[in-house]
Amino acid sequence: ERCGFPEVIFGTGKSAETVIEIAGRLLAHDQHVLATRIEAEKAKQVLERLSDARYNPVARTIRIDANPRGPEVGHVAVITAGTSDLPVAEEARETLAWMGVRATMVHDVGVAGPHRLPERLAEFRDTDAIVVVAGMEGALPSVVGGYVPCPVFAVPTSVGYGANLGGLSALLAMLNSCASNVAVVNIDAGFKAGYLAGLVATRRGTV
Amino acid sequence: ERCGFPEVIFGTGKSAETVIEIAGRLLAHDQHVLATRIEAEKAKQVLERLSDARYNPVARTIRIDANPRGPEVGHVAVITAGTSDLPVAEEARETLAWMGVRATMVHDVGVAGPHRLPERLAEFRDTDAIVVVAGMEGALPSVVGGYVPCPVFAVPTSVGYGANLGGLSALLAMLNSCASNVAVVNIDAGFKAGYLAGLVATRRGTV
Amino acid sequence: ERCGFPEVIFGTGKSAETVIEIAGRLLAHDQHVLATRIEAEKAKQVLERLSDARYNPVARTIRIDANPRGPEVGHVAVITAGTSDLPVAEEARETLAWMGVRATMVHDVGVAGPHRLPERLAEFRDTDAIVVVAGMEGALPSVVGGYVPCPVFAVPTSVGYGANLGGLSALLAMLNSCASNVAVVNIDAGFKAGYLAGLVATRRGTV
Amino acid sequence: ERCGFPEVIFGTGKSAETVIEIAGRLLAHDQHVLATRIEAEKAKQVLERLSDARYNPVARTIRIDANPRGPEVGHVAVITAGTSDLPVAEEARETLAWMGVRATMVHDVGVAGPHRLPERLAEFRDTDAIVVVAGMEGALPSVVGGYVPCPVFAVPTSVGYGANLGGLSALLAMLNSCASNVAVVNIDAGFKAGYLAGLVATRRGTV
Amino acid sequence: ERCGFPEVIFGTGKSAETVIEIAGRLLAHDQHVLATRIEAEKAKQVLERLSDARYNPVARTIRIDANPRGPEVGHVAVITAGTSDLPVAEEARETLAWMGVRATMVHDVGVAGPHRLPERLAEFRDTDAIVVVAGMEGALPSVVGGYVPCPVFAVPTSVGYGANLGGLSALLAMLNSCASNVAVVNIDAGFKAGYLAGLVATRRGTV
Amino acid sequence: ERCGFPEVIFGTGKSAETVIEIAGRLLAHDQHVLATRIEAEKAKQVLERLSDARYNPVARTIRIDANPRGPEVGHVAVITAGTSDLPVAEEARETLAWMGVRATMVHDVGVAGPHRLPERLAEFRDTDAIVVVAGMEGALPSVVGGYVPCPVFAVPTSVGYGANLGGLSALLAMLNSCASNVAVVNIDAGFKAGYLAGLVATRRGTV
Amino acid sequence: ERCGFPEVIFGTGKSAETVIEIAGRLLAHDQHVLATRIEAEKAKQVLERLSDARYNPVARTIRIDANPRGPEVGHVAVITAGTSDLPVAEEARETLAWMGVRATMVHDVGVAGPHRLPERLAEFRDTDAIVVVAGMEGALPSVVGGYVPCPVFAVPTSVGYGANLGGLSALLAMLNSCASNVAVVNIDAGFKAGYLAGLVATRRGTV
Amino acid sequence: ERCGFPEVIFGTGKSAETVIEIAGRLLAHDQHVLATRIEAEKAKQVLERLSDARYNPVARTIRIDANPRGPEVGHVAVITAGTSDLPVAEEARETLAWMGVRATMVHDVGVAGPHRLPERLAEFRDTDAIVVVAGMEGALPSVVGGYVPCPVFAVPTSVGYGANLGGLSALLAMLNSCASNVAVVNIDAGFKAGYLAGLVATRRGTV
Ligand SMILES: Nc1ncnc2c1ncn2[C@@H]1O[C@H](COP(=O)(O)O)[C@@H](O)[C@H]1O
Ligand SMILES: Nc1ncnc2c1ncn2[C@@H]1O[C@H](COP(=O)(O)O)[C@@H](O)[C@H]1O
Ligand SMILES: Nc1ncnc2c1ncn2[C@@H]1O[C@H](COP(=O)(O)O)[C@@H](O)[C@H]1O
Ligand SMILES: Nc1ncnc2c1ncn2[C@@H]1O[C@H](COP(=O)(O)O)[C@@H](O)[C@H]1O
Ligand SMILES: [Mg+2]
Ligand SMILES: [Mg+2]
Ligand SMILES: [Mg+2]
Ligand SMILES: [Mg+2]
Ligand SMILES: [Mg+2]
Ligand SMILES: [Mg+2]
Ligand SMILES: [Mg+2]
Ligand SMILES: [Mg+2]
Repeated sequence: ERCGFPEVIFGTGKSAETVIEIAGRLLAHDQHVLATRIEAEKAKQVLERLSDARYNPVARTIRIDANPRGPEVGHVAVITAGTSDLPVAEEARETLAWMGVRATMVHDVGVAGPHRLPERLAEFRDTDAIVVVAGMEGALPSVVGGYVPCPVFAVPTSVGYGANLGGLSALLAMLNSCASNVAVVNIDAGFKAGYLAGLVATRRGTV
Repeated sequence: ERCGFPEVIFGTGKSAETVIEIAGRLLAHDQHVLATRIEAEKAKQVLERLSDARYNPVARTIRIDANPRGPEVGHVAVITAGTSDLPVAEEARETLAWMGVRATMVHDVGVAGPHRLPERLAEFRDTDAIVVVAGMEGALPSVVGGYVPCPVFAVPTSVGYGANLGGLSALLAMLNSCASNVAVVNIDAGFKAGYLAGLVATRRGTV
Repeated sequence: ERCGFPEVIFGTGKSAETVIEIAGRLLAHDQHVLATRIEAEKAKQVLERLSDARYNPVARTIRIDANPRGPEVGHVAVITAGTSDLPVAEEARETLAWMGVRATMVHDVGVAGPHRLPERLAEFRDTDAIVVVAGMEGALPSVVGGYVPCPVFAVPTSVGYGANLGGLSALLAMLNSCASNVAVVNIDAGFKAGYLAGLVATRRGTV
Repeated sequence: ERCGFPEVIFGTGKSAETVIEIAGRLLAHDQHVLATRIEAEKAKQVLERLSDARYNPVARTIRIDANPRGPEVGHVAVITAGTSDLPVAEEARETLAWMGVRATMVHDVGVAGPHRLPERLAEFRDTDAIVVVAGMEGALPSVVGGYVPCPVFAVPTSVGYGANLGGLSALLAMLNSCASNVAVVNIDAGFKAGYLAGLVATRRGTV
Repeated sequence: ERCGFPEVIFGTGKSAETVIEIAGRLLAHDQHVLATRIEAEKAKQVLERLSDARYNPVARTIRIDANPRGPEVGHVAVITAGTSDLPVAEEARETLAWMGVRATMVHDVGVAGPHRLPERLAEFRDTDAIVVVAGMEGALPSVVGGYVPCPVFAVPTSVGYGANLGGLSALLAMLNSCASNVAVVNIDAGFKAGYLAGLVATRRGTV
Repeated sequence: ERCGFPEVIFGTGKSAETVIEIAGRLLAHDQHVLATRIEAEKAKQVLERLSDARYNPVARTIRIDANPRGPEVGHVAVITAGTSDLPVAEEARETLAWMGVRATMVHDVGVAGPHRLPERLAEFRDTDAIVVVAGMEGALPSVVGGYVPCPVFAVPTSVGYGANLGGLSALLAMLNSCASNVAVVNIDAGFKAGYLAGLVATRRGTV
Repeated sequence: ERCGFPEVIFGTGKSAETVIEIAGRLLAHDQHVLATRIEAEKAKQVLERLSDARYNPVARTIRIDANPRGPEVGHVAVITAGTSDLPVAEEARETLAWMGVRATMVHDVGVAGPHRLPERLAEFRDTDAIVVVAGMEGALPSVVGGYVPCPVFAVPTSVGYGANLGGLSALLAMLNSCASNVAVVNIDAGFKAGYLAGLVATRRGTV
Repeated sequence: ERCGFPEVIFGTGKSAETVIEIAGRLLAHDQHVLATRIEAEKAKQVLERLSDARYNPVARTIRIDANPRGPEVGHVAVITAGTSDLPVAEEARETLAWMGVRATMVHDVGVAGPHRLPERLAEFRDTDAIVVVAGMEGALPSVVGGYVPCPVFAVPTSVGYGANLGGLSALLAMLNSCASNVAVVNIDAGFKAGYLAGLVATRRGTV
């Protein structure tokens, strides 16, 4: 579990054996399984044993449905600044899929190509919440926040070099966002941003 | 305006004159006014000119209603670790009031008095979102996050001394929270956390 | 002089007496005078003695022309994210005026109000160089850099609170800009950015 | 030796040969041996030569008793937030065993699962001292400190990612603990916390 | 109260009125009173109302005994590197007095005068615990730790200039101490170190 | 693309396949190709497919001309402090070649050999702009800036050890340069400095 | 005394009374007195009581000779980058005077005016040791180190703004100096650099 | 060469070929050769070609004498806190040997074993200068500085873990040393400290 939320398996430092064991226990309780931070080799071992498991090699996640799912609820957009931010965005998307939330992906609309984001506004203006994934200067969440009225969950990524300080520069920029609707999660924490956006989206769905 | 959200006046560095002028313009457009970071002296000048304005000296905010309000919607809890966190919590509460959202205050339930929080669970278990304000070790959002299924917006405060680094220690702790439902805003940013929680609460309300 | 450019007086730590003395020496050599970082009180003393001196209280600069000036050359835009960035922008503008360069001011077009900048593009698309002044998340230079083909000199300001770290957050963001045409100067260094932009603009003018 | 305490061998950078040689010397003086930070490969070499040595692969420690031991004295609890904190906790436990102090392990009771710690209070309420091992937000020592009247020795671990800064975030949180009875040791320093707790426990035992 | 130990009043940000009110409540429950971080002016107001209160202007503490005390128990030494460390050391001493623990003060024995500490060893060799207070390079705890077998609680102070970083340099040095028996508390946290040492000393006393 | 400038391929994290595909698209639009951060192995794969591509193994860049080039315009000097700064300087030089700008290389003239730079002044006194590449103490841009009237684009490199902090020390020194004509780019960002200098040089050329 | 060198009084935090008392004790032992970090007001009080004391208001030092001095020995140069570095340089010079060492001052020869230092080489080429005082980019010690064969003691100053980080940028630059003969002392520590240079100079003198 | 001191070869990033070539040139000019930071494999290649070269695998240095040497001059002590500091100390010792200075090694006398240093005082009390090498808390230079009247060149090492921050903690401690005669060089810079001490020692020798 990722600190007290037994339903999500945080793969770092866990053996394939342990992942399989926890997944089995969850399925036995009719809970959908999500495992994050699973490297390819470990995933292979898990998939050999759990035939329903699907591995997303970009997100490095495994998902297993405990039972047939109903239609997706709500709507969350996952927006990236550049292609290097994709793995983190995919982790968010898998998290939303596991929660049963509809997700729209909008890629490669970073601020230095300022025409690209407005062109795609129609795809995410009516969302319940938005996940914005960006490295380097971490400016995209502020711009997105300026276009939409819903909560924006910003994920800084460790993409960059030199003074990017492993993602700290993007993190600091996002915390200082002058858009009022931007909240921040840890560097590369695609799961967390997806989970928070999913919570907002499913709450609406349940009314 | 606080960076593109003309309806909220960020008082730092603005003269009473400027605050009055912007407030007047908002009221003329039938918009409720919220001004934050207004010191007592400046507030006095504003209140002399705008008789409907109400000043909260702890939050250092001014609010003016443009027209009669309907009943409050949604439900947000604002929880503090200690009494020194009060000003930031009050800023969040005023922001929620301005948005028309019902707020419950739960004060002084920091983690080193571990019996205090559970005793008050009933007051915030059914909320739409929670604002948690804490300085020093910044541990309270994780604990709150473990008790509730809704989004938690954590606000680190600059309360403390020595290695608290002006709030950075609490900020870092909150970003590293092992509770999945904790998002973070800037140090002392009570307004932002209140605004985000309010967005979640009103969206539900509008369905 | 400390830095080898005798023609600009850095006022910090210099007495009015010293400023007057250096200014006198420059005028005697037929050089236009620019003094930066001059507080109001010190400026008053200088102006009492040097009647041609003009003080800009926002920029905190003094200028004195050694002789009549010809028409301005080149074109530089000075763009700010918010009103708090004004003093730094004014220091850049005064520097350009001292260099005899035409300057256009574009204010308050920060990224969280994403409609504002494009509306004003016409004013700065044909410039020789651009100075962008921004605090908080420091995102504006990247966006400007995406719209124009000329060099952008980014000035982080110490505007903000909490995790803005006295301007370091904006500085780091700007250094990590994914726009190729963005160079950075020290926090609050309006003079330096103005000077660099002026160098680019006057070089073209001298061909 | 670990800086002047010849009775404990700090394995980092020492060859198996050197470890064996120091251990031999200690045993010749009838001193129990503890060696920390011994990787598996090096341990294998040591065990081949010193048949009484026991290796704990999780703690990465080797212990050899110089002579039969009497009953354990005192009582120390070693508490962890999550499973990744285990190696550091085991290093503390081995240190206590080497000192002849009774140790109780309480695992995986991190703050984001707030029900888990109170359920196990009975196991550590009467201890002489407590070692608390936690990474990420480093919040557990404050909570434990609020439940017990004895000294708490907090060990931050480098467990986490992104803004955990290799354990610095947990370290800073612990230093800012608002519980009065929390002292802190270096990141991952399980040995030190165990040693300090053991000192407190054995002193009581000797009265 | 913020931190769960209601019996100690942390004066920062509390009015004289509040301090008097809490002190009264504690005395009514027959509890000895300790208030820390009380500036001279505030102390004067408190002493006017509570005639039994004694103010220590160096420590900036107030103490009031609820009832006659028995003889002191245990033995703690409080050792300083230089005279500037005195206020923090005095806060520790007052805390020990409030706990009823015997304290020995050993002043101005910093490492750059290496003859001074050994000369005074006799005064603290038999203590239950030691508080070492040092700023600048923070080296003294390691040396003391090398002389004694009991726990050492190191308090970094913000004494110094330049690269002392407000006490961070001393803090980091102490965390890296190569003496096994050194634990660390927050910068300038004389209260905390005194409290921890007092806990060790009184536990022995109660056997 | 390097964030919105589709004409330059930033190789980090891109497969040879992707590089080839983008390069092909650019050539089809008659655009000269520049790809940076291409490791030797990846370059080999690209060159096997694109026969006109030239790889610079020191700069780790690939260039392909879309059509015959006219004569070079403008003049930029690229100056290095030491031989370890060569790769970054070469990246700048390749960028200038791709832009069609004449470049002069002046190597190994770091400040601790203070006779070397003045001896070579003649080679760069008449340039349009200068790129200065330096690691360690990052002092060279200030000295160069003192000799020339044109803009200086300073690139800190990650060359050094210990307190060089991966280039941060040189970066900070350059930001604090007391020469007015020094602007700074990210650590190791040879491309950016070359691009900015090229923009200045080609603008002059276009008059 | 804090630091083991009883003959120098560190004025920070000491009352005029204490300074006078220590000075008297030193004079009674026939020792020359040096007191550093003495503000003007405190100095006035000291001079009223000790008539032989001489105060240097720039250096903020007091000196009193215990007895007539012989001729000065050795030769140390104290070199500054800019006029703001003067107070620190003067502290070094007073320290050398107190040690009886001949000092040459070379001011305002910072690296951005690269012609100035070589012109004055004759004044310091034959020195026993050199003190170099510089803020901002801290580049001067490397250049001086390249001209002379003797030890250079570099003092970073807190002169500057923005990313100078209170002198840390200059400190880091100096530590990374590529001149082999450059050692560094704390920020603003003119006394220490003067003392070290004086030790080198007097040792030669005593042969 | 990078740093203007052609006689010392900094091996990092240089091929065996380059080292051999520079060494050959130096020998042709009758200069003794010192090469630092040479890994074992590279050393082997150099020694195959230059038969007089001697490799010190702990120091990772190569030395070649250009001609027979006279007797050593002066006296420098190289003191280490622990065995892990040995490589850096050996680099200093080899530098002194190359300069023709007599060196005394005093090992493993770190502050947490406070009896060890005084026992060996006789070995270094009469030295011209002292090199002190220490990691972790970096306290040893202050203690040594308190015993001797000559300059102390302190070298922080990157030895340690957790909050040692790659040697920064020791560096900061040394800069804050309260001993007046302690100067500091970069982390792990054994060469620099040896060179500075050697300069002091040979100057005396030349009188
Ligand atoms: N506001 C400013 N920010 C940064 N540098 C400045 C500023 N004003 C002047 N300078 C630089 O400082 C030099 C003068 O320094 P000084 O000799 O101390 O008066 C000028 O020639 C400029 O290079
Ligand atoms: N000087 C001090 N330094 C650190 N913590 C203190 C100090 N004085 C009191 N405290 C702690 O703060 C608690 C009271 O905080 P509060 O509720 O804000 O009065 C006490 O119970 C102690 O745990
Ligand atoms: N300006 C200064 N900077 C650094 N250290 C100083 C300074 N002045 C005096 N000291 C040192 O501080 C010692 C005296 O400290 P104290 O016992 O606090 O007076 C002196 O012997 C010097 O070693
Ligand atoms: N281990 C070392 N640490 C620091 N500086 C060194 C070291 N070895 C050589 N140097 C310096 O680097 C210069 C040579 O640099 P380079 O031109 O890169 O070979 C020498 O003259 C020394 O000043
Ligand atoms: Mg892209
Ligand atoms: Mg000057
Ligand atoms: Mg605005
Ligand atoms: Mg767990
Ligand atoms: Mg409280
Ligand atoms: Mg003293
Ligand atoms: Mg070189
Ligand atoms: Mg040892």
